[in-house]
Amino acid sequence: MAPALLSTLATEIIIPVCAVIGIIFSLLQWFLVSRVKLTPDRNGPPSNNGKNGYDDYLIEEEGVNDHNVVIKCAEIQNAISEGATSFLFTEYQYVGIFMVVFAVLIFLFLGSVEGFSTKSQKCTYDVSMMCKPALATAAFSTIAFLLGAITSIISGFLGMKIATYANARTTLEARKGVGKAFVTAFRSGAVMGFLLAANGLLVLYIAINVFKLYYGDDWEGLFEAITGYGLGGSSMALFGRVGGGIYTKAADVGADLVGKVERNIPEDDPRNPAVIADNVGDNVGDIAGMGSDLFGSYAESSCAALVVASISSFGIEHNFTAMCYPLLVSSIGILVCLITTLFATDFFEIKVVDEIQSALKKQLIISTVLMTIGIAIVSFIALPTSFTIFNFGVQKVVYNWQLFLCVCVGLWAGLIIGFVTEYYTSNAYSPVQDVADSCRTGAATNVIFGLALGYKSVIIPIFAIAISIFVSFSFAAMYGIAVAALGMLSTIATGLAIDAYGPISDNAGGIAEMAGMSHRIRERTDALDAAGNTTAAIGKGFAIGSAALVSLALFGAFVSRAGIEKVDVLTPKVFIGLIVGAMLPYWFSAMTMKSVGSAALKMVEEVRRQFNTIPGLMEGLAKPDYTTCVKISTDASIKEMIPPGALVMLTPLIVGTFFGVETLSGVLAGALVSGVQVAISASNTGGAWDNAKKYIEAGASEHARTLGPKGSEPHKAAVIGDTIGDPLKDTSGPSLNILIKLMAVESLVFAPFFAAHGGLLFKL
Amino acid sequence: MAPALLSTLATEIIIPVCAVIGIIFSLLQWFLVSRVKLTPDRNGPPSNNGKNGYDDYLIEEEGVNDHNVVIKCAEIQNAISEGATSFLFTEYQYVGIFMVVFAVLIFLFLGSVEGFSTKSQKCTYDVSMMCKPALATAAFSTIAFLLGAITSIISGFLGMKIATYANARTTLEARKGVGKAFVTAFRSGAVMGFLLAANGLLVLYIAINVFKLYYGDDWEGLFEAITGYGLGGSSMALFGRVGGGIYTKAADVGADLVGKVERNIPEDDPRNPAVIADNVGDNVGDIAGMGSDLFGSYAESSCAALVVASISSFGIEHNFTAMCYPLLVSSIGILVCLITTLFATDFFEIKVVDEIQSALKKQLIISTVLMTIGIAIVSFIALPTSFTIFNFGVQKVVYNWQLFLCVCVGLWAGLIIGFVTEYYTSNAYSPVQDVADSCRTGAATNVIFGLALGYKSVIIPIFAIAISIFVSFSFAAMYGIAVAALGMLSTIATGLAIDAYGPISDNAGGIAEMAGMSHRIRERTDALDAAGNTTAAIGKGFAIGSAALVSLALFGAFVSRAGIEKVDVLTPKVFIGLIVGAMLPYWFSAMTMKSVGSAALKMVEEVRRQFNTIPGLMEGLAKPDYTTCVKISTDASIKEMIPPGALVMLTPLIVGTFFGVETLSGVLAGALVSGVQVAISASNTGGAWDNAKKYIEAGASEHARTLGPKGSEPHKAAVIGDTIGDPLKDTSGPSLNILIKLMAVESLVFAPFFAAHGGLLFKL
Repeated sequence: MAPALLSTLATEIIIPVCAVIGIIFSLLQWFLVSRVKLTPDRNGPPSNNGKNGYDDYLIEEEGVNDHNVVIKCAEIQNAISEGATSFLFTEYQYVGIFMVVFAVLIFLFLGSVEGFSTKSQKCTYDVSMMCKPALATAAFSTIAFLLGAITSIISGFLGMKIATYANARTTLEARKGVGKAFVTAFRSGAVMGFLLAANGLLVLYIAINVFKLYYGDDWEGLFEAITGYGLGGSSMALFGRVGGGIYTKAADVGADLVGKVERNIPEDDPRNPAVIADNVGDNVGDIAGMGSDLFGSYAESSCAALVVASISSFGIEHNFTAMCYPLLVSSIGILVCLITTLFATDFFEIKVVDEIQSALKKQLIISTVLMTIGIAIVSFIALPTSFTIFNFGVQKVVYNWQLFLCVCVGLWAGLIIGFVTEYYTSNAYSPVQDVADSCRTGAATNVIFGLALGYKSVIIPIFAIAISIFVSFSFAAMYGIAVAALGMLSTIATGLAIDAYGPISDNAGGIAEMAGMSHRIRERTDALDAAGNTTAAIGKGFAIGSAALVSLALFGAFVSRAGIEKVDVLTPKVFIGLIVGAMLPYWFSAMTMKSVGSAALKMVEEVRRQFNTIPGLMEGLAKPDYTTCVKISTDASIKEMIPPGALVMLTPLIVGTFFGVETLSGVLAGALVSGVQVAISASNTGGAWDNAKKYIEAGASEHARTLGPKGSEPHKAAVIGDTIGDPLKDTSGPSLNILIKLMAVESLVFAPFFAAHGGLLFKL
Repeated sequence: MAPALLSTLATEIIIPVCAVIGIIFSLLQWFLVSRVKLTPDRNGPPSNNGKNGYDDYLIEEEGVNDHNVVIKCAEIQNAISEGATSFLFTEYQYVGIFMVVFAVLIFLFLGSVEGFSTKSQKCTYDVSMMCKPALATAAFSTIAFLLGAITSIISGFLGMKIATYANARTTLEARKGVGKAFVTAFRSGAVMGFLLAANGLLVLYIAINVFKLYYGDDWEGLFEAITGYGLGGSSMALFGRVGGGIYTKAADVGADLVGKVERNIPEDDPRNPAVIADNVGDNVGDIAGMGSDLFGSYAESSCAALVVASISSFGIEHNFTAMCYPLLVSSIGILVCLITTLFATDFFEIKVVDEIQSALKKQLIISTVLMTIGIAIVSFIALPTSFTIFNFGVQKVVYNWQLFLCVCVGLWAGLIIGFVTEYYTSNAYSPVQDVADSCRTGAATNVIFGLALGYKSVIIPIFAIAISIFVSFSFAAMYGIAVAALGMLSTIATGLAIDAYGPISDNAGGIAEMAGMSHRIRERTDALDAAGNTTAAIGKGFAIGSAALVSLALFGAFVSRAGIEKVDVLTPKVFIGLIVGAMLPYWFSAMTMKSVGSAALKMVEEVRRQFNTIPGLMEGLAKPDYTTCVKISTDASIKEMIPPGALVMLTPLIVGTFFGVETLSGVLAGALVSGVQVAISASNTGGAWDNAKKYIEAGASEHARTLGPKGSEPHKAAVIGDTIGDPLKDTSGPSLNILIKLMAVESLVFAPFFAAHGGLLFKL
C-alpha cells in the first residue's frame, strides 16, 4: 500500500485553514449585508460602484428616502428578533436540563460497561493490543456530546440572529430592485451556511486533536469517543426541529385560520395579532431548526466515517491523512462553495424576477460540478492507492478511485434529489399545476391530488438513494456509505445558503406588508419568496436524503461496534424490530401533527379574542397584542416537543436494554426505510400545496387566471391545502430526519453498553 | 413422536363434511332472506312465528302494503344488480385475458427450470429421494393457479349477487322495524361469508386429493404446485380490489362533488345521475373486492402452511392428518362461525338502534372465544405431541401446545386489531369526536387531525402483529406464522358476514332514499349503515392484519424454496431491496389515488352535463341517464387498474430475474413493513372522517348538535374530510393488502425459476 501524497503536517494545516477561510468569508458577507442601514440615512441613498446590488441601474426612488418606512421596518425587525431570541432562550433552558441529564446518563451507561474500572483493557477489535479504559471513553464521549450540543446550539442561534438581521434589510433593498434584494437575502443565507459548515469542521478537528493528547495511539477509543459529537449535534437538532416546527406552524396555521379565512385580511397583515409570531416561527423553525438538522447530519456522517476508518487500515496503520479524509472532503467543500457563492453575488446579476429561480438552481449545479473535481483531488492526494476497510468482521480491499466514486455518487444523488424535488414542488411544472387545477372541484380533490403527488415524488429520490447505497456499499461497505453521505453534504454551505434564503425572503415580504410598503415592493418580495419555497423544499430533500445515508452509515457502525455479524430479517427478534421500527415514523408524525393542531387551535382562540375585544383593531386604529401570541406559540411548542422527543430518545435505550442489539438493529432499519418515504412525501406534498396556492394567486398564466383571483372558490380550496401542508412540510416531515438519524447515533454511542448488558428480557 | 389421535380416514371425512355444512348453512340463510318478497304481496304482510325478524312486535304498518314502494325498490335493485353484473363481466373479460397470459408465463418460467425435461429429478430438500419433473410441477402449478383464480371470481361474483339480492329486501324489512332489517342484512352477509369460506376450503381440499393421484408420495412437489392456488386467488383479488375500489370511489366522489356540494341535494337522491353507479360501486368494491381479498389471504396462508409442512416432519413422514392441520382449523372455524351466527340471528333480538353495534361486536368476541376451544381440540387430536418444522435449513422440534398457541395468538391479535379499529373509527369514542370537533375551524384542521388519528391508530395493531409474529416465529418458525395467519382468518365466515353487512345496509339506505320512503325508515337504515361503517373498518383491519402475517409466511416459504439461508440487511443487495420495497406502497398509492381523482373528475363532468342539459331533472320531473354514469365508472376503473396491477405483478418478476433472490427478499420485507402502516393509517383515517361526518349529521349528543346541522360550516368541513377519505379507505388502503401478499406469493411460485436463472444483472 503506497502512502498518501499529502503529509500529516499538510493535513494538519489544510483543515483548520479551510475552516478559518470559511469563517472569514462568512463574516465578510455579514459585513456586506450590514451596509444596508436600518437607521434613516440623512444623506440620501448610498452610491456605490460595484456589481450586483451596488450599481444604480435598478434603483427606483420610490420610498427610498421615506424615513418612516425605514423606522417601521426596524421596529418590526426588532419585534421578530426579540420574539425569536426569547423563544430560543426558553428552549435552551429546557434543553440545558435535558443535556445535563443525558450527559450523566451517557457517562453512567458507558462507564458501567467495564464496571467503572480505571484499568486499561483489551481492544475490542484488535485483542492483541491494550486500549484505554471504558471509563475514559465514557468521560470523553460525554465531553464530545456536550461539544456537539453546544456547537449545534451556537449554529442555530447565529443562523437565527443573521436571518432576523437580514430580513428587514432585504425588504429595504427591494425598494431598489429585485436584484439588490436577492443579493442581500442570499448573502445572509451564505453567512449562515459558511459559519455552520466551518464551525462544525473546526470544532470537530480541534476535538480530535485534543482527545488525541490523551488517547495517543488508541484510535479505536479515540474515535469511539468522538461519536458523542454527532449525538450531541443531533439531539439538539431534535428539539430545534420539533420545537421550532411546532412553533412556526402553530403560529402560521393559527394566523391563517382567523386572518385569511375568517376575517378575510391578507397574509402578514399587521392587524393580525399572530403575525409577529408567524414571522418569528420562520426564523426559529426553518432557519435555526434546519441549521441544527444539517449540522447534525454533517457531524454524524463525519463521526460514522471516522469510527469505521479507525478500525480499518487507516486506523490500524495510524495514517492520519487518510484518517482525516472525511474532514478533507468537507474542507474542500468550503472552498468550492465559496467560489459557487460568488456566481450568485458577483459574477452574474439578477435583472428580472424570472431569473431568481434559475440563479438558485445554478448554485446547485455549479457547486456539484466543482465539488466533483475537488473530491477527485482529495481522493488522489489524501488516500493510498489501496487500503482496507472493516466490513462486518473482515477487512475488505478498496482502491482510492472507488472511494472517489462513493463520495461522488452521494454528491450527485443529492443533485438529482434536489431537481426532482424542484420538479414536484415548483409551480413552473405540471405536477403542481395539476394540483392547482384540481382545486376547481374543491378542497377534497386538491387534497387527494396533493397526497398522490407526494407519494409519487418519493419514487426517483428513493432510486437515487438506493443506487448510491448500492455503489458505495459494494465498493467500501459502511465507510462508503458514510463518505457518500459526506459527499451529499460537502456542498452544505451552498445548500444552507439557498435554503436560508427562503425564510429570509418570506420574512422580508411579511415586513413589507406590515410596514405598508407599496404593492410593487410586495410583488418583488413575493417573487423572491416563491423561489424560496422551492429551494426550501430542495433543502428538505437534501436533508432527508443525507439523513438516510447518514443513518445507514451510523447503523453500520453500530452493528460493527455491537459485534453483530448479520442482521437477518428471518429471525423473529429482528423482524419484530423491523416492523415496529417502520411504525415509529407514524407514531412520531401523529404526535407532531396533533401538537401543531392543538397549538394552532389555542392560537386561533387568542386571535379571535383579540379581534373581538380590542376595539378598533379591525379598522387598523388599535395595535394588537403581539406578545401574547408569541408567548402562546413558545409555551405550546416547548410543552409539545417533549413527548415526541421522549419517543425518539427513549426508544433505542429501551429496545437496546430490554430486547438487545438484534431487535434494535431491526428497529433502526425499519425506521430508516419507512421514515424516508414518509418524510419525502410529507415535505413535497406540503411544498406543492403551498406553490399551487401561490400559482393561483400570482395568475401568471392563462391557466392560472382561470382559477383565480384571490378569494375565488378554487383559491379557497388551495388555501385549505396550503394549511394542511404546513405541519406536513415544516413539522412532521423534516422532524423525521432527526428521528432516523438520532436513533442510529444514539444506538452507536450506547453500543458498548448494549453489547455488554443489553437484551435483559431475553436473558431472563 | 406419538401419532395423532385423528386417523387419516377421519380427516378425509371431516374436512369435506364441514365444508358442505358451511355451504348448506349458507343456502339456508339465502332461503330465509328470499322469503322477503320483492313482488307486491296481495295477501298483506306475511305472519310468521319465530324469533328475530319473524315476530310482529316491531311491525309498524306504514307503507307495508304500499305496492308502489315495493315495485320501486325492485326496479332500483334491478338497476344496481345489472350495473354490478355488467361491470364484473367487463372486468372478467380483461382479467380472463390476463389469466391466460399469466398461466402461460407460469408454465414457461417454471418449466424452464429444468429445461422442460420430463425426467424425474432429485428432490430439492431431500436429495436422497426422487421427485416428479419440474415440468409436471409447472403444469400443476398452472392448473392450481387457474383453480384459485376461478374460485376467487366465483366467490366475488356470488357475494355481489347476494348483496344486490339483499339490499332492497333490507329496505323493505326496515318498514317493519330495525330488528328485521338487521337480521336480513346480516343473514345476507352470512351467505357470502359461509359460501366463501366453505368453497375455498372445499376446492383446495379436492385439488390436493386430485393432485395426489399423480404426485403420490412426492409431497414436496405436490404442495409446491398447490401454491399456485394462492397466487390465482390473490391475482384476482388484485383486480377486484383495485378495479372495484376505483369504480366505487370514482362514482361516490363524483356523485358527492356535484350532488351534495354544488346542487345541495341529499346523498342517494334519485335525481343524481351517478347515484346508481355509486350503489353499484358498494357492491363491486366493498363486497366483491373484499371477498376476493380475504379469500386470497385464506388461500395463501393455507398454501404457505402446507408448503412449509411438506418439508417438515409431517411431509417427510407422510402424516396426512397433521399435514391437513391448516385445513382442519378452517373446518372447525366454519362450525364455530355457524354457532356464532345464530347468536345474531336467533338467540338474541335487536330491539333498538343502539343495540346494533354491540350485537356486531359480540359476534367478534363469541367467535374468538369459541374458536379458541376449537383450535385446542384440533391441535390435540390432529397433531402428534411433538414433531419437527423446517426452519431455514434446519429442522426445529415443536410441541403441539406450541402450535395451539401460534394459532391462538393470531386469532386474538385479530380481535385486538378489530377493537382498536373500532375505537379509532366509531363515533362513540373520543378520537372521532375530536376530529369532528376540529371541523369548527374548517376543513384544514379536520384533515390534519384525521391524518394524525390514522397515524396514531397504527401503533397498537403493529404491536399486536409484532407480538403474534414473535410468538409464532419463535415457536414454529414460518409454519407458526402461517398458522397464526390462519388463526386470524379462522373466523373468516363471521368476519365477512359483519363486513358485507355494511355495504348491504348502505345500499338499503340508498334504496330507501331513492324509493322516496319516509324519514323514519331512512333513520333506521342510517343507523344500520353507521354500524356498518365501523364494521367495514374492522373488516379492513382484519384484512390488513392477516395480509401482514400471510405475507411474512409466504416470504418465509419463498426464502426456503429459493435456498436462501439468511436475509442480511447488512448486504447492499438486500438493503436496496428493502428501501425500494418500502417505497412501493407509496408508488402504488399514488397511482390508485390519482386514478380515483381522474375518474371522479370525469364523473363530475358527466353529472354536471346531465344537470345542465336534461330539462326538469333538478325538479324531479325527468329521469337522469344512470347508464352513462355506470359506463364511465366501468371504463375508467378497467383502464386505471392496469398500471397499478402491472406494478404489483411485474415487480417480483423483474427484481427476481434481474437482481436475484436476495434483492427480492429485501423488496418483499420492505413492502411488507411499510405497506402495513400505510394501509392501516389510510383505512382508519378514512373511516374516522366518514363517521365524524355522520356524527355531526346524526346530532345524537349535545356536542354533536353544536357542530351541526347538515349544511353548517363544520358539516361542510366534515364532508370535505369524508370525500378525501373515500379513496384512502376504499381504494388505496385496502389494495395495499394485495400488493404485499401478491408479491410474496408470486415470488414463492416463481422461486424455483429465480433460484435457477435469476439475478441476471449480477451474473453479467
